[in-house]
Amino acid sequence: MKVFEIQGEFGLDNLKPAERADPRPGAGQVLIRMRAASLNYRDIMTVEGTYNPKQPLPLIPCSDGVGEVVEVGDGVTRARVGDRVATTFFHDWVSGMPTRARLRSTLGGPYDGTLAELMVVGQEGIVHPPEHLSDEEAATLPCSGVTAWNALVEHGGLRAGDIVLVQGTGGVSIFALQFARMFGALVIATSSSDDKLQRVRELGSWQEINYREDDGWGKTAHKLAHGVGVDHVVEVGGAGTLEQSLRAVRIGGSISIIGALSGAASRLSVLPILMQGVRLQGLLVGCRESFESMNRAISSNQMRPVVDRVFPFSDAPAAFRYMKSGAHLGKVCLSFD
Amino acid sequence: MKVFEIQGEFGLDNLKPAERADPRPGAGQVLIRMRAASLNYRDIMTVEGTYNPKQPLPLIPCSDGVGEVVEVGDGVTRARVGDRVATTFFHDWVSGMPTRARLRSTLGGPYDGTLAELMVVGQEGIVHPPEHLSDEEAATLPCSGVTAWNALVEHGGLRAGDIVLVQGTGGVSIFALQFARMFGALVIATSSSDDKLQRVRELGSWQEINYREDDGWGKTAHKLAHGVGVDHVVEVGGAGTLEQSLRAVRIGGSISIIGALSGAASRLSVLPILMQGVRLQGLLVGCRESFESMNRAISSNQMRPVVDRVFPFSDAPAAFRYMKSGAHLGKVCLSFD
Amino acid sequence: MKVFEIQGEFGLDNLKPAERADPRPGAGQVLIRMRAASLNYRDIMTVEGTYNPKQPLPLIPCSDGVGEVVEVGDGVTRARVGDRVATTFFHDWVSGMPTRARLRSTLGGPYDGTLAELMVVGQEGIVHPPEHLSDEEAATLPCSGVTAWNALVEHGGLRAGDIVLVQGTGGVSIFALQFARMFGALVIATSSSDDKLQRVRELGSWQEINYREDDGWGKTAHKLAHGVGVDHVVEVGGAGTLEQSLRAVRIGGSISIIGALSGAASRLSVLPILMQGVRLQGLLVGCRESFESMNRAISSNQMRPVVDRVFPFSDAPAAFRYMKSGAHLGKVCLSFD
Amino acid sequence: MKVFEIQGEFGLDNLKPAERADPRPGAGQVLIRMRAASLNYRDIMTVEGTYNPKQPLPLIPCSDGVGEVVEVGDGVTRARVGDRVATTFFHDWVSGMPTRARLRSTLGGPYDGTLAELMVVGQEGIVHPPEHLSDEEAATLPCSGVTAWNALVEHGGLRAGDIVLVQGTGGVSIFALQFARMFGALVIATSSSDDKLQRVRELGSWQEINYREDDGWGKTAHKLAHGVGVDHVVEVGGAGTLEQSLRAVRIGGSISIIGALSGAASRLSVLPILMQGVRLQGLLVGCRESFESMNRAISSNQMRPVVDRVFPFSDAPAAFRYMKSGAHLGKVCLSFD
Repeated sequence: MKVFEIQGEFGLDNLKPAERADPRPGAGQVLIRMRAASLNYRDIMTVEGTYNPKQPLPLIPCSDGVGEVVEVGDGVTRARVGDRVATTFFHDWVSGMPTRARLRSTLGGPYDGTLAELMVVGQEGIVHPPEHLSDEEAATLPCSGVTAWNALVEHGGLRAGDIVLVQGTGGVSIFALQFARMFGALVIATSSSDDKLQRVRELGSWQEINYREDDGWGKTAHKLAHGVGVDHVVEVGGAGTLEQSLRAVRIGGSISIIGALSGAASRLSVLPILMQGVRLQGLLVGCRESFESMNRAISSNQMRPVVDRVFPFSDAPAAFRYMKSGAHLGKVCLSFD
Repeated sequence: MKVFEIQGEFGLDNLKPAERADPRPGAGQVLIRMRAASLNYRDIMTVEGTYNPKQPLPLIPCSDGVGEVVEVGDGVTRARVGDRVATTFFHDWVSGMPTRARLRSTLGGPYDGTLAELMVVGQEGIVHPPEHLSDEEAATLPCSGVTAWNALVEHGGLRAGDIVLVQGTGGVSIFALQFARMFGALVIATSSSDDKLQRVRELGSWQEINYREDDGWGKTAHKLAHGVGVDHVVEVGGAGTLEQSLRAVRIGGSISIIGALSGAASRLSVLPILMQGVRLQGLLVGCRESFESMNRAISSNQMRPVVDRVFPFSDAPAAFRYMKSGAHLGKVCLSFD
Repeated sequence: MKVFEIQGEFGLDNLKPAERADPRPGAGQVLIRMRAASLNYRDIMTVEGTYNPKQPLPLIPCSDGVGEVVEVGDGVTRARVGDRVATTFFHDWVSGMPTRARLRSTLGGPYDGTLAELMVVGQEGIVHPPEHLSDEEAATLPCSGVTAWNALVEHGGLRAGDIVLVQGTGGVSIFALQFARMFGALVIATSSSDDKLQRVRELGSWQEINYREDDGWGKTAHKLAHGVGVDHVVEVGGAGTLEQSLRAVRIGGSISIIGALSGAASRLSVLPILMQGVRLQGLLVGCRESFESMNRAISSNQMRPVVDRVFPFSDAPAAFRYMKSGAHLGKVCLSFD
Repeated sequence: MKVFEIQGEFGLDNLKPAERADPRPGAGQVLIRMRAASLNYRDIMTVEGTYNPKQPLPLIPCSDGVGEVVEVGDGVTRARVGDRVATTFFHDWVSGMPTRARLRSTLGGPYDGTLAELMVVGQEGIVHPPEHLSDEEAATLPCSGVTAWNALVEHGGLRAGDIVLVQGTGGVSIFALQFARMFGALVIATSSSDDKLQRVRELGSWQEINYREDDGWGKTAHKLAHGVGVDHVVEVGGAGTLEQSLRAVRIGGSISIIGALSGAASRLSVLPILMQGVRLQGLLVGCRESFESMNRAISSNQMRPVVDRVFPFSDAPAAFRYMKSGAHLGKVCLSFD
């Protein structure tokens, strides 16, 4: 089978096509012929060696993918040949508390990921994505979708009437916007591009801020939110934005921080957290049960994830470069057709 | 000022117009010129003497009303002359835990209610209803609206993708349908009338059951809910329906029971609760903070309560009779114009 | 190996010793040499055919047991030979939501249970009980212990200062008393025997009521609870007691109902639930993660379950008869030594 | 009446005795003859001008006090002459959500505080402290006690078996230790003094770390907590300790940050929060309903707050200097006798 793997050392130039032996499913496992994958910023960091510099190579990157079950091992009850399934970000985290072991079971490092024509995964590490979605749409869900769902729903207790601040137009932010709308919440969106803000508005945002033109955008968001501040911030941009987020949030509000971002190593002033009674929640994507709960909501509301652009599998490096450019709004996908 | 009061003894025939001295606001109180009121089943029971047979008479009934502040007492900070305000069901329950004292502070018994041209209430016992609503629409909120909000949101933890069963087309049920839709949930509605089910469908229900034609409607609802059962039931009909609700609900699901209904004295088999791990929650309308939280959601989503029919204040007894007939869908209101 | 099984038809007289082939562990399974078991009222009902009359026979009853791992199958990571482990009530419910499939995976029916010298169970269906406990003490935990923990902690949100009402001196009630004390809560206990109430007092109860001498004991409990009512009731006795429980509980309080009891089929008046805003929660024992959470609390507090009496394995029928007599306080156990 | 007030400009040297006219209670207010007060670090910062440099002077400092009601205004129902009452930190926050208005209503700035022989407060701003406490013990509760209760109970969902890390031996930390013990949780305590650690051990800590001798104490705490990390940290020391706390906490654990501390302006690395899925909660003391809930727990468990030393009211400045020295363990109090 064909795969893409990081060869020799880290770096986008070392993401190369390779041939591996076709895998076969063991007991409790399924063999999937991949149809689509999607990229996350974590995948770029993995390829560049900034996510986990100790990751052994070669590695097949990417955590998100959708395909068709073509063979099942002994004792498999959760899928049948012919089923369309998506991978879960944490292979072994079905439900319950996060533990070190569960959190280590991620695809795309340390385990080989979805940039492969065939994949073997345990039957507990798959879900059936909503039927109304295309393969590419379904492939956007495992990391960005579940992260946004957890931030707002599992941790945030999102309610109609809440005001949610999303930053930029990456995958998690657009999912957060869509889930907020689904729950009857209002969204304040930021971007550096008026064109993107126009598209975000079409997706249902309530207020938009061009942060290039407004370097006090945190305060602006606070004012827009009835002068009281926003209820939730989905924080994706690192420390520079975090200070603005702390200005935007209301007393007693919450900020969910998404991992694996460029500015994540920066430092944060603690005082505003104290004085506003704010909750800062580090996000860990989420378990399979959250994924399934999200799928149900997506199906019920016939929601469609936003796919910015689809590259053929053979152009995977181009997809990585495009995503790194930041030109996208929503998700960048790969198709195996 | 003109009022309607229960005179002499209980009974709809004893709901009579009367003249009382105009009240004046004391310290911390506001004087409201009423513009609209709405009826709840509890008000019918109060007038008929079945809600609280020991209630002293005369009593001005009804808990729900909207009007304009025409005078404020010393120290009032929560409203100004000219504000449009709605009454809260429990005058003294601002937030926090329900206590006996807070639960006793209800309008329309033991306190005089909203069927009066002028009302004096403490400033903690009012809210500012959503601006986009007509007076009659705003007057539907204090009891039915807050009850449905509490059932699904505060107690139920309603989420997108959940399946909600509502029974009949009374005020609470229609609010529950609207809030469920607002949160991206699916609604199964029941009625004895296909015409009403058609109107409910226009309001956004997902599945409808005519319970006249389907005496196993609880099981039907269970099947419709993907064969797993519904997540929440908003139970308004007493013991006969409760047995069906217990068949409809999923393992680990919840049933909110609305008080003050005809069948409330009936008896319930405990076994299905046990075997399904079901939660049965008695509902107590809700506090002012819930009311305000609901108002924010209604405003954000420009939701409009369903007003079935508006009677002039002078025809209050006709409104009670109409409501008792059960012909309505949504709320029956009075206008003071 | 020797086992006890229900042979031919239901009834305590048909609980008979038998010989079965020694089982061997498959992949992901462990073989346990049993050292102790404990009885629950459900086991009596199972043997008598009142729990699930359709249960195929023969069946090895009992869900609770402790033993030593003597062999492990391929891929087992959760236990090693020599480990002391306890069975979980639901073999397949590790964490997350209860589902029909998870709830069907119970030992002692439909699956063979713990009255066997050797048992094979999947590695996900075991826990390591607290080390300071004897085998018999550890064997009391899987059903009664987890049920009481779930009632008060997972569902009840138990806090220091809460007042808990427990009924009688069976396994769940005594565990509830001990957990309530562990959390700094106060306990009102009931029994028909002053001797038992004396022993309950030694275990830390705050108030005791002999319900034989006080047929208004619900009201008495309400009064004792500062005239406000108790926060939680752990309801084990069926409908007769449930009416008293509804009198005992405070406004907004909660009642957890334990399944599988004699009076469970009786009927309940709904009105008090409504008028007091009470929550009635059907209990489903609980998942493995709850069991582990409970174990941690038991270890930290060096708590010791109350073992009333230990019978040798060969006297299993006598243990059932003793438990049925109701003479016990706490748990009735079997020892395989 | 005699008071202590900050005169002219900030600074401990400007905390001076003064004479003011005896106040009288208005409608809804009570007049309290103070018997005891307690100090918090915030009070030192207030006097020194670092808490709120814009605070107008003169100001009577201190938020915590206990006294006897000697007169009540019209309409007062929550207290009678002769009652012993304690002040609440936020005069207007009875229950429900924190709002800007509620959070501004603090005693000891902007409102005059408890260093006065007589005080007038609204009846909603008092509670009845547990009867078994001395006046000084009762005076320790309003700020430190409620803060620790909120950190662990309201926000932390504290359970038996949890492991709690407390830092140093100030008021909040000692309360946190006592509440953790009350709930059956284990405590790891830190101090720079072996003597203090010995006393903390007598109060029930499970493990102690002298952070002077162990500059990797965060990692040490992680190891002590079964190698998994602690469940809750009550963080009182500012940014230097916060980095250690982030090393100590388990995946998915929580850190409550107490405001108003010296190091609060420092900066924090965000990355560990992300990678461990940690929750950081800014603490705002708490509302009256939390105070009452805490009181009930203290009464039920006959818990006694730790009073380090009592100064006479006339020596208030000495008490401030003593507290600033950091020599105390628990609370520093004033007596008005």
